[in-house]
Amino acid sequence: MTVLNPLIYQPLNEKTAIKQALDLKLFPEDADLTCKEIGDGNLNLVFHIVDQKHNQGIIIKQALPYAKVVGESWPLTLHRAKIEADALKTFGQIAPDYVPKVYYTDDQLAITVMEDLSHLSIARKGFIQGETFPLISLHLGEYLAKTLFYTSDYGLGSGAKKEQVQKFMNPELCKITEDLIFTDPYFDAETNEFEEDMRPAVEELWKDEELKFHVNVLKKIFLTDAEVLLHGDLHTGSMFADNQQTKIIDPEFAFYGPAGFDIGQVFANLLFQVIVNEKHRDVFIQHVETVWNVFQVQFSQLWEKENKEPLANTTSFLHYHLAKYFEDALGYTGCELIRRTIGLAHVADLDSIQDEQTRLAAKQKTLELGKNLIKKRKEIRDLSEFIRTVKEIV
Amino acid sequence: MTVLNPLIYQPLNEKTAIKQALDLKLFPEDADLTCKEIGDGNLNLVFHIVDQKHNQGIIIKQALPYAKVVGESWPLTLHRAKIEADALKTFGQIAPDYVPKVYYTDDQLAITVMEDLSHLSIARKGFIQGETFPLISLHLGEYLAKTLFYTSDYGLGSGAKKEQVQKFMNPELCKITEDLIFTDPYFDAETNEFEEDMRPAVEELWKDEELKFHVNVLKKIFLTDAEVLLHGDLHTGSMFADNQQTKIIDPEFAFYGPAGFDIGQVFANLLFQVIVNEKHRDVFIQHVETVWNVFQVQFSQLWEKENKEPLANTTSFLHYHLAKYFEDALGYTGCELIRRTIGLAHVADLDSIQDEQTRLAAKQKTLELGKNLIKKRKEIRDLSEFIRTVKEIV
Repeated sequence: MTVLNPLIYQPLNEKTAIKQALDLKLFPEDADLTCKEIGDGNLNLVFHIVDQKHNQGIIIKQALPYAKVVGESWPLTLHRAKIEADALKTFGQIAPDYVPKVYYTDDQLAITVMEDLSHLSIARKGFIQGETFPLISLHLGEYLAKTLFYTSDYGLGSGAKKEQVQKFMNPELCKITEDLIFTDPYFDAETNEFEEDMRPAVEELWKDEELKFHVNVLKKIFLTDAEVLLHGDLHTGSMFADNQQTKIIDPEFAFYGPAGFDIGQVFANLLFQVIVNEKHRDVFIQHVETVWNVFQVQFSQLWEKENKEPLANTTSFLHYHLAKYFEDALGYTGCELIRRTIGLAHVADLDSIQDEQTRLAAKQKTLELGKNLIKKRKEIRDLSEFIRTVKEIV
Repeated sequence: MTVLNPLIYQPLNEKTAIKQALDLKLFPEDADLTCKEIGDGNLNLVFHIVDQKHNQGIIIKQALPYAKVVGESWPLTLHRAKIEADALKTFGQIAPDYVPKVYYTDDQLAITVMEDLSHLSIARKGFIQGETFPLISLHLGEYLAKTLFYTSDYGLGSGAKKEQVQKFMNPELCKITEDLIFTDPYFDAETNEFEEDMRPAVEELWKDEELKFHVNVLKKIFLTDAEVLLHGDLHTGSMFADNQQTKIIDPEFAFYGPAGFDIGQVFANLLFQVIVNEKHRDVFIQHVETVWNVFQVQFSQLWEKENKEPLANTTSFLHYHLAKYFEDALGYTGCELIRRTIGLAHVADLDSIQDEQTRLAAKQKTLELGKNLIKKRKEIRDLSEFIRTVKEIV
């Protein structure tokens, strides 16, 4: 853990952020800098600093020592800023097209200075406004194939991988996931949030022992399967996109866990659009298909060409991995669908639907799909069965 | 990793070991100390220091910076001495009846000073000489239940467990296991050792793609499933015993891995006696049964009474764990049976059989049983089916 010196750490403001940028000499001497705090996350300050003269910008992200969502009462280690910076560097080396460039990091100030992506939109916001970002699923499939292969025992070698496991041990942020995704939605926890009309469906879910068994198993896999370096929070709010580019940001939840977790988060967050976006439903179904198809093809190529594990480079063992990842991914898809509907952190895809009946119907479908994917993930053996299940419920 | 100062680290000899003991004031002032190096392992010096006047002793174990089995050409980090000392302390707190007391450790000298157990015999040697140690399986079942429960997410809580995973990261000794148990026996590796008459059976094994697939899966679980703090080398040469007591020594391979690995090593090393020891065959079959039965009962009690994981304390989820541990254990049993027959480090149970035909027949059976357990571990659903499989082949 980074030992923090309270004499050094201070939250930046728009003025001190500019001073920091000047000290780092990231702009020409005649730059005309403006700064705006644009953070809409729960855990960080985000300063957008622009040189108005040359029209160039940077981002300075600084971790806060508490979660904004629950005020200052939920303290969080600033060590996560180091995890995030290290993860950006690691993923950036592996998949540079899909990760913002990092210019500077300071563990004591808990800051990362990085590429300005303000020409892109947050994918979730874009989707809600009617965008489809036609290349995003191809990019996500490739990003997942590369990051999940090259950080595994097979891409990295078992010794180097163990060093990475140690470096990315992230107990505090994992605990947030353990609670908010795998625990609280399954009993009457204070953190849960749902509309009163949802209560009968939610109480039914709390009584569903079969569902809770499967969630326990998925949580166990999350707790113990140190397969790959995960982004750990790979929803569409952690993606910048336009029609050409996709950039994955905010890997502060990064840790070594089951590959299916990142894939499942991607599936689920695309499925919100399948559920709510009648106009582009087929496009988002295709996005889900493309993510898996591209992932599968590229992961298989990497497996065959770059495998560092002796005797492991066989087709049957590759298929074992793809089948495990797919099964886990379906389970984690279900967990994400459920927690975003009745847990602490909702998604605008659902909550921004104005018409109450439409909104409630969408949430019911989301819960139903989530439960089905969790319980039936072993029976749903391929992509077409997955899509059939989605279509049946939506 | 411990940073070693070459000015401080020096291998002890019988004289300097006595000096070390005197400096630590572990004996009365009028003690009459003698010292003997009694190490028969491959990686360490072991000094037995006895006060002849008061008939009391201690053991000083010191890690060597190389593996003796292959001369000085195989360098090994001395950090493993810290891992071993930490593991002895952790297991000693959890299961004090079955672990030697630690009096002193020095990471720089890579030494652990501990309880003298010279009134007991190495279990493997005792078995070969006709002992059966009637309580050993009860003790092993209890030791496994306690160590595998209390070091898990369920016994420790997920945050504290992650700290332990980090503390016990042990890449170098894990690599030895990865190579010698899961890799080298499955191709024509230089490290393998087998009698020429075994060659047809060994070559058949090298061509067995189904077997190699399953070994890949078991190795993958070993590489990624950070379930519990394992001893990591729990064969009958790591156990001291008599008819009343059992003590588990030498946890230098300790790391967070799949619970079934320790259980499987215990099963396999008892099975060597089932295979070779006609006189006591039924006793050793009972030992295998007792290990699992005691483990299952005591682990279940701990699960129900001490579970720290919310919502996890259900019978179905406990059974999920027991079934996974059992399946994994059968696989690792098979891997241990095979590698001890044709890999680098053999066991005296087999190699000390004088009659060539008897010895070769025993080795053939060991290979056959190993292959069966690995391939059929999912079909063998309970202890009685396991024992039936053993009896059919033996």
